[in-house]
Amino acid sequence: MPEFVLYSRKGRTVGKFKELRTAGRLDLVYQCILMGMFTSHGKRKDTLFHVILGGAPQPPVHIRIDGAELHDVRTDEATWSRILSNVLSGEAHPGITVQKGSFQSVIKGLEGRRIWVLEERGVHVGDAELSRDDVFVLGDQVGLPKKDESFALRYGEKLSLGRKRYLAAACVSNVHFVLDQL
Amino acid sequence: MPEFVLYSRKGRTVGKFKELRTAGRLDLVYQCILMGMFTSHGKRKDTLFHVILGGAPQPPVHIRIDGAELHDVRTDEATWSRILSNVLSGEAHPGITVQKGSFQSVIKGLEGRRIWVLEERGVHVGDAELSRDDVFVLGDQVGLPKKDESFALRYGEKLSLGRKRYLAAACVSNVHFVLDQL
Repeated sequence: MPEFVLYSRKGRTVGKFKELRTAGRLDLVYQCILMGMFTSHGKRKDTLFHVILGGAPQPPVHIRIDGAELHDVRTDEATWSRILSNVLSGEAHPGITVQKGSFQSVIKGLEGRRIWVLEERGVHVGDAELSRDDVFVLGDQVGLPKKDESFALRYGEKLSLGRKRYLAAACVSNVHFVLDQL
Repeated sequence: MPEFVLYSRKGRTVGKFKELRTAGRLDLVYQCILMGMFTSHGKRKDTLFHVILGGAPQPPVHIRIDGAELHDVRTDEATWSRILSNVLSGEAHPGITVQKGSFQSVIKGLEGRRIWVLEERGVHVGDAELSRDDVFVLGDQVGLPKKDESFALRYGEKLSLGRKRYLAAACVSNVHFVLDQL
């Protein structure tokens, strides 16, 4: 099944925050989860979504969302603000696990899978042989830190969605759309 | 330039509400605007986005968002909750106009353009000859009311994004993605 790995450089790593945007752009993380895990009136049960939060005060944190187990969710930001706050405060939520874990350790754990790092200057998505078992790695509004991108490229290669510079959430949506046509 | 027409059956038509989701699913309207009007660190200046709100207490309301004029915006839901509340209360916002106006009047105003009504059983997007000057019509989580869909189909035809039933916001994102590859 497809897996996504989103690196949020500044995403806050504890559950105490006022709104997602000012919590190190957790709003962007929410948007990617929305596009990654939901269809109309349903969830993408065959999708795994990893988020690595690199922000204060306790980085790095690895959030893992399993579409097969995900329950008690809605699609709006306010709901996900509560969910992210809860799980980052140590509370349980079905389908979501939170643990210490760096971007590089998550990538290493996916060794053996075909890993695509989303980047404007990669192989164009129309020319790449994608499969529903591939892994798609993307950064936040700033992109992946150079050393982490280099690390990921030891395990995979760059994939381009075209010349447009998409929102991270649109990248996730576009990848799903391409995979859905296979 | 591409135009989108989103019909939100229950979207609240005054600016007084607590959160978008409970205001007739205005959260879905926000998500479509997010995917319709933004790129990474930028706006889609060449996109027009129409929303028709059919909810209480003063339907129908037509919100028109012009990417070329849109300013003072961010991409998070909390920001758009404030913007939608303001413009529905009669305040001005650059790039956004609000007026009385029905779905059918908006469609009629687009006569002469190629109009596609997003529907699972339409022409597959891979087989349709789309252009960046086309119009894309979509419903909310319930879909278009039957009589309004029939009306729109007098001016256009059905377009399918495949078998998957996408979130409305993902439909918008997917259409942009397809147009971007032209």
